[in-house]
Amino acid sequence: MAPKLQVAVAGLGRMGARHALNFHNRTPRAELVAAFTPVQKEVDWAHVHLEGVTIYTDYDEMLKHPGLQAVVVATVTTAHAEEAIKGIEAGKHVLCEKPLSTSVEISQSVVDAALKKPQLKVMCGFSRRFDASYRDAFNRMDNGGIGRPSVFRSQTCDKLDPSGFFVAYAEFSGGIFVDCNIHDIDLALWFFGQDSIVKSVVAAGITAVQPELRKHKDVDNGVGIVEFWGGKIAYFYSSRMMAAGQHDMTEIIGTDGKLAVNANPSGTLVELHELTGVRREIPHDYYGRFENAFVTEANEFTAACLDNNKLPFKLSGAVQAVKIGCALQESLNSGQKINFDETGRRLESVKL
Amino acid sequence: MAPKLQVAVAGLGRMGARHALNFHNRTPRAELVAAFTPVQKEVDWAHVHLEGVTIYTDYDEMLKHPGLQAVVVATVTTAHAEEAIKGIEAGKHVLCEKPLSTSVEISQSVVDAALKKPQLKVMCGFSRRFDASYRDAFNRMDNGGIGRPSVFRSQTCDKLDPSGFFVAYAEFSGGIFVDCNIHDIDLALWFFGQDSIVKSVVAAGITAVQPELRKHKDVDNGVGIVEFWGGKIAYFYSSRMMAAGQHDMTEIIGTDGKLAVNANPSGTLVELHELTGVRREIPHDYYGRFENAFVTEANEFTAACLDNNKLPFKLSGAVQAVKIGCALQESLNSGQKINFDETGRRLESVKL
Amino acid sequence: MAPKLQVAVAGLGRMGARHALNFHNRTPRAELVAAFTPVQKEVDWAHVHLEGVTIYTDYDEMLKHPGLQAVVVATVTTAHAEEAIKGIEAGKHVLCEKPLSTSVEISQSVVDAALKKPQLKVMCGFSRRFDASYRDAFNRMDNGGIGRPSVFRSQTCDKLDPSGFFVAYAEFSGGIFVDCNIHDIDLALWFFGQDSIVKSVVAAGITAVQPELRKHKDVDNGVGIVEFWGGKIAYFYSSRMMAAGQHDMTEIIGTDGKLAVNANPSGTLVELHELTGVRREIPHDYYGRFENAFVTEANEFTAACLDNNKLPFKLSGAVQAVKIGCALQESLNSGQKINFDETGRRLESVKL
Amino acid sequence: MAPKLQVAVAGLGRMGARHALNFHNRTPRAELVAAFTPVQKEVDWAHVHLEGVTIYTDYDEMLKHPGLQAVVVATVTTAHAEEAIKGIEAGKHVLCEKPLSTSVEISQSVVDAALKKPQLKVMCGFSRRFDASYRDAFNRMDNGGIGRPSVFRSQTCDKLDPSGFFVAYAEFSGGIFVDCNIHDIDLALWFFGQDSIVKSVVAAGITAVQPELRKHKDVDNGVGIVEFWGGKIAYFYSSRMMAAGQHDMTEIIGTDGKLAVNANPSGTLVELHELTGVRREIPHDYYGRFENAFVTEANEFTAACLDNNKLPFKLSGAVQAVKIGCALQESLNSGQKINFDETGRRLESVKL
Repeated sequence: MAPKLQVAVAGLGRMGARHALNFHNRTPRAELVAAFTPVQKEVDWAHVHLEGVTIYTDYDEMLKHPGLQAVVVATVTTAHAEEAIKGIEAGKHVLCEKPLSTSVEISQSVVDAALKKPQLKVMCGFSRRFDASYRDAFNRMDNGGIGRPSVFRSQTCDKLDPSGFFVAYAEFSGGIFVDCNIHDIDLALWFFGQDSIVKSVVAAGITAVQPELRKHKDVDNGVGIVEFWGGKIAYFYSSRMMAAGQHDMTEIIGTDGKLAVNANPSGTLVELHELTGVRREIPHDYYGRFENAFVTEANEFTAACLDNNKLPFKLSGAVQAVKIGCALQESLNSGQKINFDETGRRLESVKL
Repeated sequence: MAPKLQVAVAGLGRMGARHALNFHNRTPRAELVAAFTPVQKEVDWAHVHLEGVTIYTDYDEMLKHPGLQAVVVATVTTAHAEEAIKGIEAGKHVLCEKPLSTSVEISQSVVDAALKKPQLKVMCGFSRRFDASYRDAFNRMDNGGIGRPSVFRSQTCDKLDPSGFFVAYAEFSGGIFVDCNIHDIDLALWFFGQDSIVKSVVAAGITAVQPELRKHKDVDNGVGIVEFWGGKIAYFYSSRMMAAGQHDMTEIIGTDGKLAVNANPSGTLVELHELTGVRREIPHDYYGRFENAFVTEANEFTAACLDNNKLPFKLSGAVQAVKIGCALQESLNSGQKINFDETGRRLESVKL
Repeated sequence: MAPKLQVAVAGLGRMGARHALNFHNRTPRAELVAAFTPVQKEVDWAHVHLEGVTIYTDYDEMLKHPGLQAVVVATVTTAHAEEAIKGIEAGKHVLCEKPLSTSVEISQSVVDAALKKPQLKVMCGFSRRFDASYRDAFNRMDNGGIGRPSVFRSQTCDKLDPSGFFVAYAEFSGGIFVDCNIHDIDLALWFFGQDSIVKSVVAAGITAVQPELRKHKDVDNGVGIVEFWGGKIAYFYSSRMMAAGQHDMTEIIGTDGKLAVNANPSGTLVELHELTGVRREIPHDYYGRFENAFVTEANEFTAACLDNNKLPFKLSGAVQAVKIGCALQESLNSGQKINFDETGRRLESVKL
Repeated sequence: MAPKLQVAVAGLGRMGARHALNFHNRTPRAELVAAFTPVQKEVDWAHVHLEGVTIYTDYDEMLKHPGLQAVVVATVTTAHAEEAIKGIEAGKHVLCEKPLSTSVEISQSVVDAALKKPQLKVMCGFSRRFDASYRDAFNRMDNGGIGRPSVFRSQTCDKLDPSGFFVAYAEFSGGIFVDCNIHDIDLALWFFGQDSIVKSVVAAGITAVQPELRKHKDVDNGVGIVEFWGGKIAYFYSSRMMAAGQHDMTEIIGTDGKLAVNANPSGTLVELHELTGVRREIPHDYYGRFENAFVTEANEFTAACLDNNKLPFKLSGAVQAVKIGCALQESLNSGQKINFDETGRRLESVKL
């Protein structure tokens, strides 16, 4: 029997638990051998759901798990970079949840660490890259289906969570452009080309439902425009107050056509005709929309590690995405448009 | 200024009033000069809404209105044929609401009367023939867009009217296949060819919400299959209990493709994203769906009368549609399939 | 580590290979230990894709595989019943592809065999029972969302296969109502209640693209109506000539609302706006539509075997579905409506 | 018979001809008595299609037409303001096509002229205000259906016209934000409140298909963000290069829900299932989308004039819309964000 990739997952919170289950149950070529969490409740959960997996409460100890080959970093964002680097330095392949960090410099340090170990597979978990619909759209564009892609619109809009969770979360999330739109930014870089150079960034936002977000310099609705050198524009919307559920969507507009991804959100294929009209429900959260993409991610990461295949996208793009996200967040807060020259170097803006 | 067609409308009930307003206000080449209703409430309504129009409470008197050229018959179904024939005999063009009659023989008598006055335009008001979507579908089929049309599915489903109106109505409506599906049957004859010959007819139905319908040998949900000689099948559904609103729809399935008309019903172009999901409203009744078709009907009938143009479809088809509708209704009640030979002559079926 | 269900798959053709891969890779609690196929090409395929699985060319030998607990029967339809019965008699849980047989009597023999081994899980593979959308619809109905379900419409329409495959296939398929609509019939029994009693059956069909089907008493487009005692009607459509792809859809119409499943087919969530309009692609075949349902089926069957849980539906329903399918196929060929009394006993019809 | 509003139309180009026909044929309470065009081809057209209407080649002469009560100004944009003012000064009601002018000052001069004649009805032709779907959306919002409206997204995207017409047109159009997005801006003012005060404006754009537009300081794809004081944001997209047809759409996002208008564009209700998938066509131009709105506009303007009703929206809003459109266009060309204080007074921005 072919050897399976020996995988550990760091973090067993909401997303970490999903990664752990996906590697445990839905990734035939991987074997989840270890998991790390400092949280007792998560340890208890793991004993029930991750049978046969060694649970560590110390990340460094977990890295020493015998035979371990790969680590999935799915802890809080603030720990991503340090744990990813430790994993790399310990000679493990690393799949790190997005963003690498909310800081451009720290994100870059992960890339630098990875560059020193070129034999390792180090990937940032941009799940939409593994979504069948986005891939379908990309292939159609890549095959010339819409001419030259020119305008890119993308949104990540979360269902309103009235618990106020997002206020506490905003302290470390990096802000709505770094936390939510990072996916849309990454998609723009995918569709426009990973090496696209930003020309300007401008953003605006409001706190429509959670004014407390302002203390963390964040908003619950944000709009941003990113110009790229070479005649391309991306614009983004993110929101924390959708009533009906999570709704991401993307349009890629080319000189000969347009691709729309999830313009018509739906959950199952059921429509209910009732007294008030025709109704359909949509997923409550991004996992309801992207569950299959996460499974594909786990399987493809595993295959790349085992077979020494190229990863589907470069780690350095994750730094570029954070850079754009941070610039949007800065523009949101300063009220200033930020400009860059054709080499991507920031131009000094004059304060009003 | 070019002379306008001098038109009278017989009947100012729900549909008659709409015809009257359409000829009064939305048919530039027609002038509504007279209307007939025996109902005082409708006379009062006419004095407010049909300014300048002479209102008669006697149909025969109305026919004598000076200069009258055309009559729209929109009274109760039981009066259609007699009034249409009187109009024809008085030398008027006639637009008669569907069905001509719930009896095949009486329907045929209208055709016979019309045959004696070939210079007159006599048309049965199959409104869907004037609907932009059905015309679009027909043209696509006619241009070969789906190969050879082979299977035809069509439904006319009304919003549930909890008032019980349909029970009283059923006494004279001819039954659900004659009253509702008559449109679908007419469409099948349009798309398959007006001279298609029926091979067999079978139907079934239930009274899910209005058991009193049984006393009029009717149902509130009916399903029927009509085979045509030459390898074509139509199947129909009609209902009186839609919760969300009126929903007609049609599919024409050909050897190379399929046309779907109104598979996704909607009212306006608005969708409401709310806590319970994504919702759209649909029209409450057929007029919400077909208002523009009725206006087109009025204008095209007018133009045909004034310019002596050919009508878009033959009057004899209306008899064929009633014949099929009555056969379906009979099959519903007898439980027997009814067969016809290749000339369309009914074959004797053996009672069980 | 918890023991895994030891599973074998019989048949490695199109569907068998999928079952084998699903049990091999996507069913964490199962271990595919054996497979049977007499076809050398499939043996070769298995050696590549089913690593570690013992491949047998004799079904009886496979049944003797040490430790084997469950068998998936996915050979040709004509072998289903015999292999299922052998599996049962050998004390194995059995998941048998639909239909058990194209014969009611033979189908019943599987049920009879299963009744003698009540400790075994024996299930017919009605994959739609595991589809998230159908389950969503069922739960909404079951929770009263549409009042009393009364009319059921369902279709299974396959993409046109110009190779003529279906002609050869029709020799043993049992005909379009047994092969395609069996799913729709099973759904009707699910939604209306497994013990619904048929009152009448009538069908019609044409050979629009493959006239050779007539030699196997089959058609490429079929329409049927099934009345149930108690005021319920189901009507079905099946086709082998869809241009755009596979399109199954179902409507459950109740006294207070309607549920539509897959009324708007789509493949991925991508829409392409191009010169000719807005276009989306739909799945080419049923597996493109139901892949996830098959995976769920594998996992739930496994769990039922391991945990001795109740299966989600009764095996006897599969006989009822075949009985209705065969009656529709008979009606198609005889041109006669077939009636049943309130106990489900067939009434003698009089030949014309 | 009630007197009809005596109407003249100035300009018989593409849009003027449509207005003329609408007032001639589809506005029962109006009588088109005169029209003006200096173009011989249009005079000829009028003699065929506007029977009984006096055609003038001099605007001032037309204003003297006996009994004239109202003028529809539908000439080139550069003539709108002058002709509207002349009409007002001659004591005529005026329906002026949008925009009043591409200059804020000139637009204001029309408002000033109207203020001196308060008995006259002077309206800018924002056709979407009369569209059934936008009205439906507005009413739902107004009734609290989405909580507090907070984010507004709207686009006006035209089908690519490869003739290069838009390049010549751009010389006088005022630019894409003034010509196309003026509708979206007006909608934002409608939904957010006519007296909303702009806080900032920023825009970006590209010339993806028509680089010659740069000589008129215009683009073929533009994106803009408008912040309003009070925590509201609108963002806009306009394009001249849609492959599939015209696609306007709008979302109004509130604290409790979202309204989407025309998220799923379609033309008729027909979908074509063919080898390449499922396809629908969409309107080629805005008139295909808004024809009924223009007819409603004609009828409501007429009713307001005859009955001395209030117009549905204030003329001054048209100046506000032009002001925002011009600011977006300026920002597009300067690359600068433009800020306004809470009274709407522009803040000096510092050049880079």
